[in-house]
Amino acid sequence: MEDKNEKCAVFGIYGKGLDVARLSFFGLFALQHRGQESSGISVADGYGIHTYKNMGLVNQVYTEETIHSLQGHLAIGHNRYSTSEGTGLKHAQPVIVKNGLLSLAHNGNLPSVRKLKDFLESKDIGTQDHSDSELMAKALGYYLEHGESLKDAVIKCWPLWTGAFCLTILTKDTLVAVRDVFGIRPLSMAKLNGDGVVFASETCAFHTIGAEFEREIKPGEMVIVNKDGVESVQLETPKQKFDIFEFVYFSRPDSQSLGKSVYEVRQKCGIQLFEECKLEADVIIPVPETAMPVAAGYSRASGIPLEMGLIKNRYIHRTFIQPEQHSRELGVKMKLTPLPEVIKDKRVIIMDDSIVRGTTSRQIVKMIFEAGAKEVHMLISSPPVKFPDFYGIDTPKQKDLISAHKTPEEIKTYLGATSLYFLSLEGLIKSTGLNKDLFCTSCFTGEYPIDLGEKQNDISEPVYAKVAKPEGALL
Amino acid sequence: MEDKNEKCAVFGIYGKGLDVARLSFFGLFALQHRGQESSGISVADGYGIHTYKNMGLVNQVYTEETIHSLQGHLAIGHNRYSTSEGTGLKHAQPVIVKNGLLSLAHNGNLPSVRKLKDFLESKDIGTQDHSDSELMAKALGYYLEHGESLKDAVIKCWPLWTGAFCLTILTKDTLVAVRDVFGIRPLSMAKLNGDGVVFASETCAFHTIGAEFEREIKPGEMVIVNKDGVESVQLETPKQKFDIFEFVYFSRPDSQSLGKSVYEVRQKCGIQLFEECKLEADVIIPVPETAMPVAAGYSRASGIPLEMGLIKNRYIHRTFIQPEQHSRELGVKMKLTPLPEVIKDKRVIIMDDSIVRGTTSRQIVKMIFEAGAKEVHMLISSPPVKFPDFYGIDTPKQKDLISAHKTPEEIKTYLGATSLYFLSLEGLIKSTGLNKDLFCTSCFTGEYPIDLGEKQNDISEPVYAKVAKPEGALL
Amino acid sequence: MEDKNEKCAVFGIYGKGLDVARLSFFGLFALQHRGQESSGISVADGYGIHTYKNMGLVNQVYTEETIHSLQGHLAIGHNRYSTSEGTGLKHAQPVIVKNGLLSLAHNGNLPSVRKLKDFLESKDIGTQDHSDSELMAKALGYYLEHGESLKDAVIKCWPLWTGAFCLTILTKDTLVAVRDVFGIRPLSMAKLNGDGVVFASETCAFHTIGAEFEREIKPGEMVIVNKDGVESVQLETPKQKFDIFEFVYFSRPDSQSLGKSVYEVRQKCGIQLFEECKLEADVIIPVPETAMPVAAGYSRASGIPLEMGLIKNRYIHRTFIQPEQHSRELGVKMKLTPLPEVIKDKRVIIMDDSIVRGTTSRQIVKMIFEAGAKEVHMLISSPPVKFPDFYGIDTPKQKDLISAHKTPEEIKTYLGATSLYFLSLEGLIKSTGLNKDLFCTSCFTGEYPIDLGEKQNDISEPVYAKVAKPEGALL
Amino acid sequence: MEDKNEKCAVFGIYGKGLDVARLSFFGLFALQHRGQESSGISVADGYGIHTYKNMGLVNQVYTEETIHSLQGHLAIGHNRYSTSEGTGLKHAQPVIVKNGLLSLAHNGNLPSVRKLKDFLESKDIGTQDHSDSELMAKALGYYLEHGESLKDAVIKCWPLWTGAFCLTILTKDTLVAVRDVFGIRPLSMAKLNGDGVVFASETCAFHTIGAEFEREIKPGEMVIVNKDGVESVQLETPKQKFDIFEFVYFSRPDSQSLGKSVYEVRQKCGIQLFEECKLEADVIIPVPETAMPVAAGYSRASGIPLEMGLIKNRYIHRTFIQPEQHSRELGVKMKLTPLPEVIKDKRVIIMDDSIVRGTTSRQIVKMIFEAGAKEVHMLISSPPVKFPDFYGIDTPKQKDLISAHKTPEEIKTYLGATSLYFLSLEGLIKSTGLNKDLFCTSCFTGEYPIDLGEKQNDISEPVYAKVAKPEGALL
Repeated sequence: MEDKNEKCAVFGIYGKGLDVARLSFFGLFALQHRGQESSGISVADGYGIHTYKNMGLVNQVYTEETIHSLQGHLAIGHNRYSTSEGTGLKHAQPVIVKNGLLSLAHNGNLPSVRKLKDFLESKDIGTQDHSDSELMAKALGYYLEHGESLKDAVIKCWPLWTGAFCLTILTKDTLVAVRDVFGIRPLSMAKLNGDGVVFASETCAFHTIGAEFEREIKPGEMVIVNKDGVESVQLETPKQKFDIFEFVYFSRPDSQSLGKSVYEVRQKCGIQLFEECKLEADVIIPVPETAMPVAAGYSRASGIPLEMGLIKNRYIHRTFIQPEQHSRELGVKMKLTPLPEVIKDKRVIIMDDSIVRGTTSRQIVKMIFEAGAKEVHMLISSPPVKFPDFYGIDTPKQKDLISAHKTPEEIKTYLGATSLYFLSLEGLIKSTGLNKDLFCTSCFTGEYPIDLGEKQNDISEPVYAKVAKPEGALL
Repeated sequence: MEDKNEKCAVFGIYGKGLDVARLSFFGLFALQHRGQESSGISVADGYGIHTYKNMGLVNQVYTEETIHSLQGHLAIGHNRYSTSEGTGLKHAQPVIVKNGLLSLAHNGNLPSVRKLKDFLESKDIGTQDHSDSELMAKALGYYLEHGESLKDAVIKCWPLWTGAFCLTILTKDTLVAVRDVFGIRPLSMAKLNGDGVVFASETCAFHTIGAEFEREIKPGEMVIVNKDGVESVQLETPKQKFDIFEFVYFSRPDSQSLGKSVYEVRQKCGIQLFEECKLEADVIIPVPETAMPVAAGYSRASGIPLEMGLIKNRYIHRTFIQPEQHSRELGVKMKLTPLPEVIKDKRVIIMDDSIVRGTTSRQIVKMIFEAGAKEVHMLISSPPVKFPDFYGIDTPKQKDLISAHKTPEEIKTYLGATSLYFLSLEGLIKSTGLNKDLFCTSCFTGEYPIDLGEKQNDISEPVYAKVAKPEGALL
Repeated sequence: MEDKNEKCAVFGIYGKGLDVARLSFFGLFALQHRGQESSGISVADGYGIHTYKNMGLVNQVYTEETIHSLQGHLAIGHNRYSTSEGTGLKHAQPVIVKNGLLSLAHNGNLPSVRKLKDFLESKDIGTQDHSDSELMAKALGYYLEHGESLKDAVIKCWPLWTGAFCLTILTKDTLVAVRDVFGIRPLSMAKLNGDGVVFASETCAFHTIGAEFEREIKPGEMVIVNKDGVESVQLETPKQKFDIFEFVYFSRPDSQSLGKSVYEVRQKCGIQLFEECKLEADVIIPVPETAMPVAAGYSRASGIPLEMGLIKNRYIHRTFIQPEQHSRELGVKMKLTPLPEVIKDKRVIIMDDSIVRGTTSRQIVKMIFEAGAKEVHMLISSPPVKFPDFYGIDTPKQKDLISAHKTPEEIKTYLGATSLYFLSLEGLIKSTGLNKDLFCTSCFTGEYPIDLGEKQNDISEPVYAKVAKPEGALL
Repeated sequence: MEDKNEKCAVFGIYGKGLDVARLSFFGLFALQHRGQESSGISVADGYGIHTYKNMGLVNQVYTEETIHSLQGHLAIGHNRYSTSEGTGLKHAQPVIVKNGLLSLAHNGNLPSVRKLKDFLESKDIGTQDHSDSELMAKALGYYLEHGESLKDAVIKCWPLWTGAFCLTILTKDTLVAVRDVFGIRPLSMAKLNGDGVVFASETCAFHTIGAEFEREIKPGEMVIVNKDGVESVQLETPKQKFDIFEFVYFSRPDSQSLGKSVYEVRQKCGIQLFEECKLEADVIIPVPETAMPVAAGYSRASGIPLEMGLIKNRYIHRTFIQPEQHSRELGVKMKLTPLPEVIKDKRVIIMDDSIVRGTTSRQIVKMIFEAGAKEVHMLISSPPVKFPDFYGIDTPKQKDLISAHKTPEEIKTYLGATSLYFLSLEGLIKSTGLNKDLFCTSCFTGEYPIDLGEKQNDISEPVYAKVAKPEGALL
């Protein structure tokens, strides 16, 4: 529910006879949850590249006229969320190098860009005020300008790129998808109408356009699509470290990753939560929408009835109007309304996916009590978030993560809840049905698979060390 | 799920020291589901009225600058859905008479405006190209210009107004709320910070701004608020005929009407559906979002597990981009994705609130079968819609209502469903826990409580007559 | 030519049966030169006031829909130029008090608002962040709220208003025009279609709408128009001190003031310039557009042929694109092009209306020499501007006025001109055909007819004192 | 003064190290008078082409952000006027073929596109709904796609292009300028900062950006600019037929064509008019702005003083507000105001460049009489316009040309003028100082140098045949 934001979604499509801009639009539309600040599409036709990007939701950015002006048979697309790198059109993607030499869409983050900058500076290429995505694109551009194919350019740049990245890249005639060696962010591939090839951050984009899921891009793999067909190059041995938060929160429930349905994993988290923490209660209420399958799982396992006791305003995205002085807590009230008829005089379980800052959870607990609950038990389908993310999620700084500073017991008190329980990391992993080694769990454990480079300093001494039994215990 | 659209939401607020424009904004925001085409607020301060209205969602229409420019201590607001009366800014409400003489917001519809036009024309007041709302406002304006108070003006106009209407009306110093004698559309009243008075189409608007629900405006009642306090005038003996569709579909689940929670009524519809139609199935899937409590009710009554097997795109409101030629059915696919993991090889119950044209339901059935279902049973939480609405809902013409022409058996065949069941009218009414006489059920029965006047001709001979057992039977 | 900007234009109209908003539009259009930042119109109809204002040129601010929404039989309008009081919509006029109690449009400036603020604060009325126009309007509002008529409210406020002001004021049924006792800014009145009454900052607005000029509003006079007819009240004995810069630069040539045609006065300035400074030259070139009649006068008096040797880009208003590094002087080049065919090998007289900062004049001199001139003589149709304005013109601070720091001889050197001559103040006044006492000449002489109050400190010790013969001498 | 509209302006620039987009902006700004509906710039950088175009004035279309996004070292630009081919963004130029294969800007018109369509259709390339410019671009695109250089593509397309055209064309690395064999529209070339090459429709664009005029592109010439330098190819022997209307009306006075200054030609037209028609009058007033040098010429030759007796509103471009019912003639009144002080009791000569429909002239004559003139003599610095243009000017249809139906005598009566005189064709040509054979005079004579093809039918039988002495006679 709370403010963790995915940086981006990427998309790519290749297919003679397809209206690739239109299909990119619908693909990006299905990926809207991964970025709402800006959107862009680049289209190529064998002769050059034409790009359109603007601020706003996918629905607001494109018009029939725009889509019509994007003619070609290969395309990439991007949705962006505003991050620390700044806001505004100049940060919108795809990133372009020269006019039509190269267009690149990036989901992820390079915590360190030292090597990349050194390389570019050694070639007398400016790097000032450049995002990691622009630096990656410029390095590719260097090799393309020196006569390399896009495939060879990616191979040569590979050692320079240290971090989390799923890329879709376009030249005038070739589409490439690349995923970092840890496969931190998701990236999949599908078939459309026979020959057509589609790449997308999440598989939910395939259903929307009628494409058929084929497989995930492997960590460390590059897939090249052009008139000669589809070629796969394994650039490095995969060391899969998939961000487990994609299952917990980011991905749409109708997506799948590592062969697992996000919906099912969440449902199993609910069942696992019951295994770990058997509460007595009258009703279980999910915080919409992520926690709904979790709550359904717990309900089925426990027999406690599930009710949609928190109603979400369907039209909430962003508003810029400040609340009135007499109603300071309007923020959450605008988004959520409790139903007294299912809450009053009840022992209520509130199910949420995670706690980041704690401020929203606190307001929810208060709201549920005000609606007449006798008890409010918070069940969280992930462990405490103690460390910031450096691989493409816009988390607050460590000092703002409540679990970096407070024990669950202290958090319970802060929230005003009757009890609070975080799913154990083991329980979370068990719910995925996969091996622990496949995941990046840095937000919970501080174990960062990719070197943080200069960002290492953003992590303070583990503030959170004083707790003997930090999770997996009902408090 | 399908395209029945409420025409409007109305709002009103009075309170010295309150930022009434800002509170109107948040109230209209909570009422967004009742109208997404345009929004407007009029504010008065004892000296005059200032109005701002524009096309778009509440969130898009107002800025801090706009809200700040609307100074005063009483206000009305309106959200509008485009209807047969036409689209565009000139139809946006509140309707204004003279500069600041009167501002009026209307939810509902007058099927006949003959009397009203005759009156105005007898006074040499132009009526050409006027909506029913404009005509109502002009009649009030006539009396105000002739020195009547707003209260007396409403009393004099009352006999001229034949139809469904919930009005909030503003002069420079007085706020009035009026509801037609049948109380077809909802209208309630709340208290805010002691003296403050709030009116809103639905009670969900009260929670958002921290107001406390007091009571419904009675059918045939006018409530006047000004510096002398709050006065109620019963203009005519109430003949409550509340549109039962507010419970079935329109109202937000966190609203209440006739003392009943919309959420609970829907849940009881699910329980009642099980009473009437006990299906054997493996899973029950609601079409989000209206049918969710219905499905929860059926699930609890039947023991068949509930799954969110249809995922709705959170960002869908409207798009104007046409689908690509290779994927004609993109419309529904953009909005809904089925989860094969909960559908495959299952006997599936799909729960929806109503069937109007049948086109969406047909695509859903197809989609569920394609996701691997063995059987697809459609359960509808309302009877067949055989007649158009004339009281403020934007339904298709009768010729486009599938139940006006096809029996449930024929509809089942058209949808391609394994079975189809409509909740009986008796069952629906039983779920409300209220007396049948309190409701307008014209869409199901063709019994229109308010004279249709010249609109009578829009109803053809009951096309739907050939079926012995039209509903309440599993097919 | 240079950057002196008038703050505003005001307009007012009263007439049953007239489309007063539309006529205000055309009037404001004719007054566009007095303010290009924002525009607004308030319309009243006997019941209230409706106002529309926005940023931009008159042509950009209004649409048919806007004009149509402004219904009534009396109106005021305003064009504004951005000034030291700040930029943006919140400074756009007309200024509104309460919703429809009062609307006010102001051209001029109150150098001191101490008395006005004291009065308002004594009545517990907020004055923070208020412009002089808002303060004036609030004081009127106070009296209107206390039951005074608009006429009486103006009478009571009169002693509080110290400065230069031409006002048009609107209540729901009355239009008033007021001019300060010195009559610093112009304000005139006309008849339209019999009963109709029109007020405008300049008479050029009357021709556009087919109105017939009647007379100027007298200094210290108020004219009241309502259903009882037109009434004049002389609030104080006139002490006419008309800003002579209206003749020199601001007013459109097709306007008239004090019974004199602006065009003719400028032409006579040219003749007078020849009287004072008989140059030998081959061609005389005006800086368009103000100096054209001046040049015509000098040409006729001297026999030196007039050529349009500086072509002005018709489409210049504002651009925000920065010039390229290779062409730093693009600013003036975008606005003006010299014609080598009339300049080459010629002794050229450049005629301009005034020199403020000197930067533009310097670029013009350079440009003329580059086009091949043998000599470039600058003739200026006004004396050196040594003092800033406090009565409604947006001049630079005194430190930026070149004549406050340099002698004409030094300026000539700075400009790079062959010679430089400023029209003498006596010559300028002689050209008007009027008595010197009728004019405010503060920019030239530092003699400010209206007390500057707290602004007195903005004038430094007369920097300009070292010159024995500051003007009226050819250098 | 009247409504003859040039279709377009073209621009082109090549130069390493130059900010070509910014310079194109300033160039197009100087060419604004040739097209105000839309504007566009394409930039190339050796790798591809990036294009931005939009509706509006140059000043409105581009922002710093836009200009900054257009990186490269060669560019073309275009301003467009709405014509019979329709309005809107899809008609904005430059025209693009493929993404970055080719971009083309066109000033002129192909009366016949039969050959061009036949060619494209023979290659299976769609031509439906294509403008002449799009067809020309597509033909070039065909050859580029088949491996030809841009130079060779132009050579191969040359025989297909029948009409009036000045083109600037861009590929990713080459800039080409081409002019039709008759050189109907102007096109010139300049140097900038050493190596830089600039092309523009009019030479006035060079001054603005500090470029130095070099020469005109010859009729039938192509100039190719790329990294190998500048190459000229004479595609066909020139048959110069320059549209004489460029001298009469279209070109800016600070441009030159065929080695002649537009300003000087207009001045000589005035002198020639006096040769042909020696009037006795008190004052001569030009209709601004085109006729100003003409009037200056007549004034100098006749000794009759010139006065700017018609003041033009500086801010007039377009307005969409309809005039009020009481002031039907507002159209011209908004644009022009007469100065009674120079008109009253005078015998006035009004000087205009041409008469097309006659409606504007009629209103001007009326206006001058209303301002008190004793006599109003119309002097026109061109012969009667009897035939429509097919080479890139947006003239009315022949039936709307007043001189196609009325004799000068009849026109004089229609205008209500005291006398009317059209400059003779011989006089006009004499004023240019050039040979008659160099000009296209079709609007006056019906002699169309380029075959009109299917457009031949748009010219009716010479309606105008009844007059023995149609021009060169004072009436």
